[in-house]
Amino acid sequence: MKASIINIGDELLIGQVVNTNAARMAQMLTAAGIDVVQTLVCPDRGSAIADSLRLSLSMADAVLVTGGLGPTKDDVTKHTLCQLTGSHLVENADALANVQRIFARRGYPMTESNRSQADVPHTCEVIVNTMGTAPCMWFDRSHCANSLLDDDKVIVAMPGVPFEMEHLMQHCIVQRLRTHFHLGAIATRNVLVQGIGESFLSDLIEPWELSLPDNLKLAYLPVAGMVKLRLTAHGDSFDQLNTLIDQHLSRLYPLAAQYIVGENRETLQELVSDRFHANHKTLSIAESCTGGAIAAGLTALAGASDYLKGGVVAYSNEVKAGVLGVKTATLDEHGAVSEATVREMVEGVRQRLHADVAIATTGIAGPGGGTESKPVGTVWIGLADGNRTLAKCMHYSGPRQQIIDRTCNEAYAWLLREIQ
Amino acid sequence: MKASIINIGDELLIGQVVNTNAARMAQMLTAAGIDVVQTLVCPDRGSAIADSLRLSLSMADAVLVTGGLGPTKDDVTKHTLCQLTGSHLVENADALANVQRIFARRGYPMTESNRSQADVPHTCEVIVNTMGTAPCMWFDRSHCANSLLDDDKVIVAMPGVPFEMEHLMQHCIVQRLRTHFHLGAIATRNVLVQGIGESFLSDLIEPWELSLPDNLKLAYLPVAGMVKLRLTAHGDSFDQLNTLIDQHLSRLYPLAAQYIVGENRETLQELVSDRFHANHKTLSIAESCTGGAIAAGLTALAGASDYLKGGVVAYSNEVKAGVLGVKTATLDEHGAVSEATVREMVEGVRQRLHADVAIATTGIAGPGGGTESKPVGTVWIGLADGNRTLAKCMHYSGPRQQIIDRTCNEAYAWLLREIQ
Repeated sequence: MKASIINIGDELLIGQVVNTNAARMAQMLTAAGIDVVQTLVCPDRGSAIADSLRLSLSMADAVLVTGGLGPTKDDVTKHTLCQLTGSHLVENADALANVQRIFARRGYPMTESNRSQADVPHTCEVIVNTMGTAPCMWFDRSHCANSLLDDDKVIVAMPGVPFEMEHLMQHCIVQRLRTHFHLGAIATRNVLVQGIGESFLSDLIEPWELSLPDNLKLAYLPVAGMVKLRLTAHGDSFDQLNTLIDQHLSRLYPLAAQYIVGENRETLQELVSDRFHANHKTLSIAESCTGGAIAAGLTALAGASDYLKGGVVAYSNEVKAGVLGVKTATLDEHGAVSEATVREMVEGVRQRLHADVAIATTGIAGPGGGTESKPVGTVWIGLADGNRTLAKCMHYSGPRQQIIDRTCNEAYAWLLREIQ
Repeated sequence: MKASIINIGDELLIGQVVNTNAARMAQMLTAAGIDVVQTLVCPDRGSAIADSLRLSLSMADAVLVTGGLGPTKDDVTKHTLCQLTGSHLVENADALANVQRIFARRGYPMTESNRSQADVPHTCEVIVNTMGTAPCMWFDRSHCANSLLDDDKVIVAMPGVPFEMEHLMQHCIVQRLRTHFHLGAIATRNVLVQGIGESFLSDLIEPWELSLPDNLKLAYLPVAGMVKLRLTAHGDSFDQLNTLIDQHLSRLYPLAAQYIVGENRETLQELVSDRFHANHKTLSIAESCTGGAIAAGLTALAGASDYLKGGVVAYSNEVKAGVLGVKTATLDEHGAVSEATVREMVEGVRQRLHADVAIATTGIAGPGGGTESKPVGTVWIGLADGNRTLAKCMHYSGPRQQIIDRTCNEAYAWLLREIQ
């Protein structure tokens, strides 16, 4: 089954907004065994939307559209769908009740233009969008006799607000597409791998990869020093597929155990959060070159306050010495980017913030600041748990943000490896 | 002049990678007075690329393509461009010298497949990509008699690696497109506005906006509590256009002075970095609800070590008390999210990190942790400069990340307003 995505919005075409919707939708569809054959961004203009829809319907079984559903006159998606499906707008009772409920909760009066959000083409089925006022619309031949939807094609129009789209996709649309197109069962599993490049990993696990059955597909998804392996299994029974994945994963581990840091999550931060919630240990962080990014990554997840005592962004030597207790002699003798300094940083932050475990970074993220002996990309990472203090040196290349991101992932992965 | 963007890559269609290239290219083209009429993502498959190119050429004067230029056999963009333009691959001497230079610098041997990166369709002009091995290719009718490029159309194929694409666009392609299509001069100016919603700002400055001449366009670009106003002027002379922008901006300031925090930068972080580099003051940061995000935003910019002493992520009360010196009595009596606490946090971090200026946050980012009197979204921000200690309370709504992002922008803007 093939899907095509159309994201409507002038703000996307001037580059004001990065089109995260396309990526998120593609992720969810791919994970559900639906191939995305094209994604396209078009302006809020009826003729452009109509052309894009016709093109996309010629390439795919289902076309998923976001945007252009607001109450103002620059939003024309509904009118265009009316024209294309030979329809007119009618007020939908469920959609109206939803708009009324949202305005009542916010305590605002509902205007006529807000009420018009409940108007939909009579050729669609409304899927109520509980997260917002614009309804989701499902078009197929059971509601619409128009030739546009011949061959059992489907159009789904959703609001462009990312969390509204995501909620609709997750709780309704993806499953509904799978049912409509009679797709079999699907099961997926992420395995997060760190500390090995994509091509080396590929060589390492090649025999295993080649032995996978046809209904079990493997994808490599590399991000900042981490590779997410995604297994997707197609078949008749969800339970059987999960058993199949378990069986094959049990043969992957002996090949790459030292690099595998976890399963079933999208990011290393999530695994760290899971681990510290499970082991009831506390964490503190001292960051020089990562400048707060390790802490920010963890605190972006709800529940961080359960285990994270806090952190120190020790950007200057003064803070390394004054707040973390790194000895001035250590800084003078070895420099800020050194094993001796990172060891004192990590011990200092663990003790002073009264945490069970601590992690620390100090390095040169560039573009300036490198020397012959410590070029840009030299990063020391320290880890302490009260029994042990460990330190290691990484050598990264690339732009500043990539050095920061790789250091963060290295720190998260090291915590996962060392702290049970 | 109209442009269309095609980003080629299977990784984009499975949602592995968010298509930031489309947004960045659209930003640069829009800023140069070139309208982007469509952006499209297609797979690494010859027929799909050819169809996408034909469609895009039918809609636009120039089609900008990224991706599919690697040396492996799944990269087929060059072969497709050969077929479409009735051409064959030839080795280009400049492109080869560039590949050799890059491999010499890295100290790796150059393989045959690396050498093949220098092969290009004989119908194109090569623009050397100094940042990587895949050359940029420019197709127009002066090199290629194929009817595809009738009506003076242009195809530009660039590598998909974001910083390679960006470097090519910024240093060559945008200007070259402007010259090729005889576009006049263009001048742009960003004005960063904070502390007022987009619709209220629009009402406030409406008389000014309506008075702008036809060759001066205004765009509203809202991000996390901040609005970037972008003025774009078209005309004959760059200097005249800048004078025109200056004249009209001088009439904007009296209307919205209290909300305008700076000009000529894309983000508030950049303005903060500029300000502290200029005034030679030092900064320290204490973060509870923002969890390191304020520091991470500033340290993502090179040169942060010139002014940033460091920060404390005071997630737990223990750290607020132990590291920042917030009194236990204050925490007990007023709670962690309170004016009294944020004042002691900001004074503590300023003094203990020996900085001239400090900023602090404490709040409830959610989704849990809210109470009747302090609901999710309640955030106290403190600012101290040695003479004054200020505190204010914000009330945000929305998901966790949005509350964090808005707090960061509020903190940056407050620094810009209070610290000269």
